[in-house]
Amino acid sequence: MSWESNVRRVVPYVPGEQPNVENMIKLNTNENPYPPSKGVQEAMKNLQLSDFKLYPDSEAGSLVHTLAQYYGLKDEQVFVGVGSDDVLAIAFQTFFNSDKPIFFPQITYSFYDVWADLYKIPYEAIPLKADFHIDPEDYKRENGGIIFPNPNAPTGLLESLDMVEKVLRANPDVVVIVDEAYIDFGGKSALALIDTYENLLVVQTFSKSRSMAGMRIGYAMGNPKLIKYLNDVKFSTNSYTMNYPSLLLGVEAVKDDAYFKETTAKIIATRERVKSELAELGFEFPDSMSNFVFARHPKVSGTELYEALRKKNIFVRHFNNPLITEYNRITIGTDDEMDALLACVKEYLEEKGV
Amino acid sequence: MSWESNVRRVVPYVPGEQPNVENMIKLNTNENPYPPSKGVQEAMKNLQLSDFKLYPDSEAGSLVHTLAQYYGLKDEQVFVGVGSDDVLAIAFQTFFNSDKPIFFPQITYSFYDVWADLYKIPYEAIPLKADFHIDPEDYKRENGGIIFPNPNAPTGLLESLDMVEKVLRANPDVVVIVDEAYIDFGGKSALALIDTYENLLVVQTFSKSRSMAGMRIGYAMGNPKLIKYLNDVKFSTNSYTMNYPSLLLGVEAVKDDAYFKETTAKIIATRERVKSELAELGFEFPDSMSNFVFARHPKVSGTELYEALRKKNIFVRHFNNPLITEYNRITIGTDDEMDALLACVKEYLEEKGV
Repeated sequence: MSWESNVRRVVPYVPGEQPNVENMIKLNTNENPYPPSKGVQEAMKNLQLSDFKLYPDSEAGSLVHTLAQYYGLKDEQVFVGVGSDDVLAIAFQTFFNSDKPIFFPQITYSFYDVWADLYKIPYEAIPLKADFHIDPEDYKRENGGIIFPNPNAPTGLLESLDMVEKVLRANPDVVVIVDEAYIDFGGKSALALIDTYENLLVVQTFSKSRSMAGMRIGYAMGNPKLIKYLNDVKFSTNSYTMNYPSLLLGVEAVKDDAYFKETTAKIIATRERVKSELAELGFEFPDSMSNFVFARHPKVSGTELYEALRKKNIFVRHFNNPLITEYNRITIGTDDEMDALLACVKEYLEEKGV
Repeated sequence: MSWESNVRRVVPYVPGEQPNVENMIKLNTNENPYPPSKGVQEAMKNLQLSDFKLYPDSEAGSLVHTLAQYYGLKDEQVFVGVGSDDVLAIAFQTFFNSDKPIFFPQITYSFYDVWADLYKIPYEAIPLKADFHIDPEDYKRENGGIIFPNPNAPTGLLESLDMVEKVLRANPDVVVIVDEAYIDFGGKSALALIDTYENLLVVQTFSKSRSMAGMRIGYAMGNPKLIKYLNDVKFSTNSYTMNYPSLLLGVEAVKDDAYFKETTAKIIATRERVKSELAELGFEFPDSMSNFVFARHPKVSGTELYEALRKKNIFVRHFNNPLITEYNRITIGTDDEMDALLACVKEYLEEKGV
């Protein structure tokens, strides 16, 4: 026997690459093209060298309180973590301990089955409808918990709160997680339902709409019992997860709501324009309500288009999943970035005689 | 049945309190009394607002490389995480998957049994010798893995590399983790042994000797196979754990080795002075080689002394563990802070007629 026989072997999630090429256009990991608000810049000046030597507040009280105020909640309804991946990983550990399978869509965030494998949680990946929408009827069988993103990734499709509520009504005995990484680009948050459904956990992030992917802040909102259970597991894993700069700057990133509304509105406007231009070029895509468009062209290989763009230093995301191999997920950048992308795509289609 | 029946219920680790009182003297969580090096201050000025919108390097390449260079290792021998608690939690998940119990000392870092409970790892807490030292003979039975701090916490006692090697020689078939949070205050690191023992993982932190508790950086060093397994589990949990400021400032905190040596030497000198003054006052304590002293007075209650100091806004750490209830763990602060502590202790002893 060797020490290697007791090692947990897992197939890890592969994050989108983070290329670092001069003059690249980076539309592959759904980052926000606009920087965080000026308040964050000001807060950076308030970082004190001598404060780095101290442990940060293990309860992240200032950040929790700022988020609670922003959403009209009590502090004990908010949990924060190192990006929504940290929050979701802790939620999987905390809530999905049944021997019945958890349910999530077959085409969805590709971390869900990785967490399920890591924590030995049985699961069923439920096919979407042909139009990529979730059918709530599929979620009415016995299960050990439910998670889906809304809008879904990588399709970008938004489900109505009515659909979310159908799933909740059918599943009072398990925790239902709505992963709302992209909700601020035109969707309605299930936050409106947390007082009605005590088993509903809503997860959001600073990485997309709040322009803070580099800061690693995610959060969950739900009834105080859910939040307490999350905190118990968090405090059984790592007491101090949110570092001093993330607490100081994270608070500021929430405060400037006018800037937040302005930048998300700009991204939405750019997205709608890109959608109509892509449609004119013959692309097909679900009607995205996120900060990306998931598009295929009936006459062009998804992989080849991805490679062609890459050669021009335009990075989009292509998934090695046979169900969606003809698609590319294109993040909505600035108008200039999208013009460059569209010009490149047009040129490629012309070359191909499409 | 309710959704609560599938919740993972755990008894979390309780971190030392982080009081925030005017003019307090904080000697309760083993923080460094000196700020990080000036290079960290300079690096703060290089944080760019526009870089916060991008995901950080998921492999933390710059930080890994800087640490590897510092210790004369290859990059693939270094793993970084959000404090050594993050590193250790991932190591427990990765390496301790046997159905045989893991071994750790009975008096030790009180997170070990919490992680074991969280991940459902069987364990045996092995009593220390009467002098608080580890007896390597106790670690020669069949087990599922071994972890101990060196120096141990909260005793502060250092074990020789000879003792560490005795444990390693007896345990080639399990992973042995040496948790060296306090090694820079006069100990010899087991890093010297990683080429000989491929099952040895050495864990260190920026929180003590590097004055960066607020930044949450810990790291593990070992052979590339161990590091790869850790990374697989890390990438199955959270792709981006180290945020942009921690990468930028963390690199700087390692670079200024002269400052590092100067501040650790100052803490060691203060510790030796405090030890002789405490001995003169009648205190008894293991011969600490860490940045704290774990002391009891044969004529004074540990709890009462803790409370008396607390009333004067001097915070030390007292553990609710019957084996060590007469002890207080006193962090080594600046000379001024320790003078204030010693004056307070003297006054208390005089009041008690000791």
